[in-house]
Amino acid sequence: MEDITKYNIIRIKDRGVLKEEDTVVIEYPFTIFLNDEEIITLLCSPNSLKELTIGFLHSEGLIDSISDIEKIILDKEKGIAYVYSKNTNRLNKKFHGKRTITSGCGKGTVFYNVVDSFNSKKIEDKIDITIKQIMDLIKEFNKSSQLFLDTGGVHSCALCDINKIIIFKEDIGRHNALDKVLGKALLEDIDFKDKIILTSGRISSEILIKVAKRQIPVIVSRSAPTSLSIDIAKELNIILIGFARGKRMNIYSNFPTLKV
Amino acid sequence: MEDITKYNIIRIKDRGVLKEEDTVVIEYPFTIFLNDEEIITLLCSPNSLKELTIGFLHSEGLIDSISDIEKIILDKEKGIAYVYSKNTNRLNKKFHGKRTITSGCGKGTVFYNVVDSFNSKKIEDKIDITIKQIMDLIKEFNKSSQLFLDTGGVHSCALCDINKIIIFKEDIGRHNALDKVLGKALLEDIDFKDKIILTSGRISSEILIKVAKRQIPVIVSRSAPTSLSIDIAKELNIILIGFARGKRMNIYSNFPTLKV
Repeated sequence: MEDITKYNIIRIKDRGVLKEEDTVVIEYPFTIFLNDEEIITLLCSPNSLKELTIGFLHSEGLIDSISDIEKIILDKEKGIAYVYSKNTNRLNKKFHGKRTITSGCGKGTVFYNVVDSFNSKKIEDKIDITIKQIMDLIKEFNKSSQLFLDTGGVHSCALCDINKIIIFKEDIGRHNALDKVLGKALLEDIDFKDKIILTSGRISSEILIKVAKRQIPVIVSRSAPTSLSIDIAKELNIILIGFARGKRMNIYSNFPTLKV
Repeated sequence: MEDITKYNIIRIKDRGVLKEEDTVVIEYPFTIFLNDEEIITLLCSPNSLKELTIGFLHSEGLIDSISDIEKIILDKEKGIAYVYSKNTNRLNKKFHGKRTITSGCGKGTVFYNVVDSFNSKKIEDKIDITIKQIMDLIKEFNKSSQLFLDTGGVHSCALCDINKIIIFKEDIGRHNALDKVLGKALLEDIDFKDKIILTSGRISSEILIKVAKRQIPVIVSRSAPTSLSIDIAKELNIILIGFARGKRMNIYSNFPTLKV
């Protein structure tokens, strides 16, 4: 299975606007069943799935060695691994306790399950924003991160209107930084529908879905988006921008509504 | 609460070796209880904890609005938030189903719970490796990532002996990339005790623990480590190296055993 796919994007480069094809990394929902019990859905690149399955089960202490595994059946079309192991009691011990583990979105069909479960509606009100305004916000965003400058070890996230940053938070995790921003906005009863999210981190489906759930019409990242995040953004009319650095950015979705 | 702390490190710079103090981002285990039920332990930066609690619960659909929340009690010393909400039935619906969520390590005391539960022993056999050998491995590692060059959207991970890369994997997630490498090594029955892990991603406690569980004596990252990962590395005699780029690197732990 391929790890990459192609999307038609608009590339902004030193004020030039180019329609180009861009290579994007595939985000593949992969669900592991152990002795017929669903363990987790990993959002991953669709390579080395057998190795991932074994490595994950071993990391989580669900197998001690290869000899614990009686059989692995990989269904690459559905994105499922069925693993049969001798250590059935481990499973009960680990997974019916309180501890929760790695990020997952249930059952392969991430998009419909998760977005529907969050009742995400399509964005209807078009936001009135220009490339220049986004560049100015990114410039302010890049200046704001003292903690990153001190440690190089954190992600930043900001909620903005078209003119300025309203909320700025930092965290070692990109999900935490976004949740801090969204939590603060909820506390202050801020209307999301004309706002922009800026993030230093990759845009995965889970990040996109958190933004979609609030009906925020624009998300901009310094880093890369995944295929699944672009698909969801297109579906929900969210403007998704990646690799926003200086005077450059890639616009992956919904660009007809964006003023150039 | 501070977001950063200081560690004494050895900084390698253009072949110079300096004993310096380095600023490191704190990794803080923060457990959220909702209506007296433990929901998750987030590994985060210890700022904006009320916002994080509210944003997380809202992102996960456990609250619809601020008005759902009757009370939030923050115990910053213990790293716990006790939230009381009206929507008790949501909790049962969401969390007693199969879907699993964000990375967590149970109950604040990440180090003892998790490392002990993985039976991590201290590294006893000193690995015989030089700075020069690590620089050469990093050089090879940086050349290896075609998928990153194509997309800018993936993490790389490699298992090496002191002379060469043995296993190299890429994934959109740093945890998946590491689990793929470790799974492949398990399949091939490779002895971990004289090996090195290279990763493009941040070294958090969960990454360190996966390496410790296999008794791998050295982990090297292009990016930053967290405070908790350094504490665990020191405790288990693991050599932890961050910001390994070109002829530079920061050695955070166990450096007496490292040949300069």
